[in-house]
Amino acid sequence: MTLVGDLSESELLARFVPLLGAPGAALVGPGDDCAVLSAPDGKVVVSTDVLVEDVHFRRAWSSAREVGRRAAAQNLADAAAVGAVPTGLVVSLVLPGELPAVWVEDLARGLDDACRPWGAGVVGGDLAGGPLVVLAVTVLGDLEGRAPVLRSGARPGDVVAHAGVRGRSAAGFALLDAGRADDARVPADVRAVVLDAFRVPSPPVGAGRAAAVAGATAMLDVSDGLLRDAGRIASASGVRLAFDDPADVLADEVALLSPVAAALGADATQWVLAGGEDHGMLATFPPGVALPDGFRTLGRVEELPTDGARVTVGGRAVRAGGGWDHFGPGKD
Amino acid sequence: MTLVGDLSESELLARFVPLLGAPGAALVGPGDDCAVLSAPDGKVVVSTDVLVEDVHFRRAWSSAREVGRRAAAQNLADAAAVGAVPTGLVVSLVLPGELPAVWVEDLARGLDDACRPWGAGVVGGDLAGGPLVVLAVTVLGDLEGRAPVLRSGARPGDVVAHAGVRGRSAAGFALLDAGRADDARVPADVRAVVLDAFRVPSPPVGAGRAAAVAGATAMLDVSDGLLRDAGRIASASGVRLAFDDPADVLADEVALLSPVAAALGADATQWVLAGGEDHGMLATFPPGVALPDGFRTLGRVEELPTDGARVTVGGRAVRAGGGWDHFGPGKD
Repeated sequence: MTLVGDLSESELLARFVPLLGAPGAALVGPGDDCAVLSAPDGKVVVSTDVLVEDVHFRRAWSSAREVGRRAAAQNLADAAAVGAVPTGLVVSLVLPGELPAVWVEDLARGLDDACRPWGAGVVGGDLAGGPLVVLAVTVLGDLEGRAPVLRSGARPGDVVAHAGVRGRSAAGFALLDAGRADDARVPADVRAVVLDAFRVPSPPVGAGRAAAVAGATAMLDVSDGLLRDAGRIASASGVRLAFDDPADVLADEVALLSPVAAALGADATQWVLAGGEDHGMLATFPPGVALPDGFRTLGRVEELPTDGARVTVGGRAVRAGGGWDHFGPGKD
Repeated sequence: MTLVGDLSESELLARFVPLLGAPGAALVGPGDDCAVLSAPDGKVVVSTDVLVEDVHFRRAWSSAREVGRRAAAQNLADAAAVGAVPTGLVVSLVLPGELPAVWVEDLARGLDDACRPWGAGVVGGDLAGGPLVVLAVTVLGDLEGRAPVLRSGARPGDVVAHAGVRGRSAAGFALLDAGRADDARVPADVRAVVLDAFRVPSPPVGAGRAAAVAGATAMLDVSDGLLRDAGRIASASGVRLAFDDPADVLADEVALLSPVAAALGADATQWVLAGGEDHGMLATFPPGVALPDGFRTLGRVEELPTDGARVTVGGRAVRAGGGWDHFGPGKD
């Protein structure tokens, strides 16, 4: 079996690069000191995210293709979260020499899998040796002439809405972390749903653009949990985000995760409200706007009372760290 | 002393972000899911480079500020090498919890040091924990309406020229690697020059744009050694790059490094021709073009003979790996 350490950088690139589709925006692809992407809007959005082995993923839990899909997906979500269309990615890879070369090929396939549906693709990168796998992915995107949707635009009276799944990644992680990925007390289809959600998030990338077109006033992608990320919109906008009772607006998600929670002695509502890594779009819209497909109303934006909580759920204050009800304060 | 592990991500960002100057191109800076940079040209250049602790730098050898300056500088060089003006950087950082927080602040100062002279700056990033420091920097740049200068445009008859220093980083590394940074047989000013060159390369960023304006036909920044990188232009262009004898065209650089080479039993000419990490601009120009300031003629572009060497020095073939004369073939 060929290992990374058996290959020169150019030999490794010769295996990796052909697996990447060239996006439509690529004027110059890999092979020069820079790639060149079209930016027809006269501006470009850019974001970067890093995944570290044994911090964000484990090779024993996720295939290389899943790691690649995840790394790309969370970056595509960042572009979507300001209302942009992703155009291209660059990837810095740190690879141990003892890694099989096929692992790196599968990683390339995973990056391409995630990009292809959105017309994006990997246009450049860098390789380095190191003691563990690190992927730093940077996404560029195009706003198509729109203003970016920032965190700071929510106004009292706006509707709080979300597109994408909620809590599934956290539930999948909890199953794996407990060594219970095969627990027969959880229906097999539910296990598959949450394990897939953890291994490869499926952010609703198109919903970001749709929200911007519909006039969203603020948006972000939920990486650290619904309530914690809601606190970021609230802080940036100087408002309160008031969520309705999850038993009313998120009962289906809680019900889906309940068999997993029951098997682990965990709280499905906490996963839904505070679980990270699902990369859904949390947005605020002016009242009366018809929400784009995929968005569900979860609450509304209110004036921030003096000394009041930035985020409430069913009328109860949420602590600074995003915990809900009995959850203690955490770091945000 | 406050450690990285004592701080939440937002607390660490609150120390880091204020040390970064906002570049003129930043329409939206840090704090949202994406930064937004102006791209007045309707296209954007992008490149990424990763630095890994104990692979590319050692904390015992380089201050955090030097690491930051180096990481930014080598990315700025990539933008310059296609003829672009760097506009903004994003930085993914992997940090061990036991790292002092001031190390991270100094890193931010170093990134900003390197960007500020060129009007660029860090506009976003990501932080993650991990067992060692990794910096993945991505640079964006603007071509100001020009076509990018690629590796593939060199034509027989063109002049081969270089701007920047040659071999100094390799000499500095060799001194440090031998534990001889204080070796009194090397004049102190020469030691300072080569150690500085290793710790913080000073790529001639402005020379890249100047070369493009002057009509350079091919260009790259020299990261792996003059001859090896010349081979890349030769391969991409289907030509030979014929360097004049270094005793004629690079005697001053060889002379500068000779005391270091003498102290270590090394070969100063090899450092000049094959040493990496200086990040100078290697370019080809049509014959008769007045070379921009900082460029020096090193040879010319020739037709590639069937089965002939892609790179020659003083008429002698260079092996595939960039070695010169008696150096064996290596991986490229």
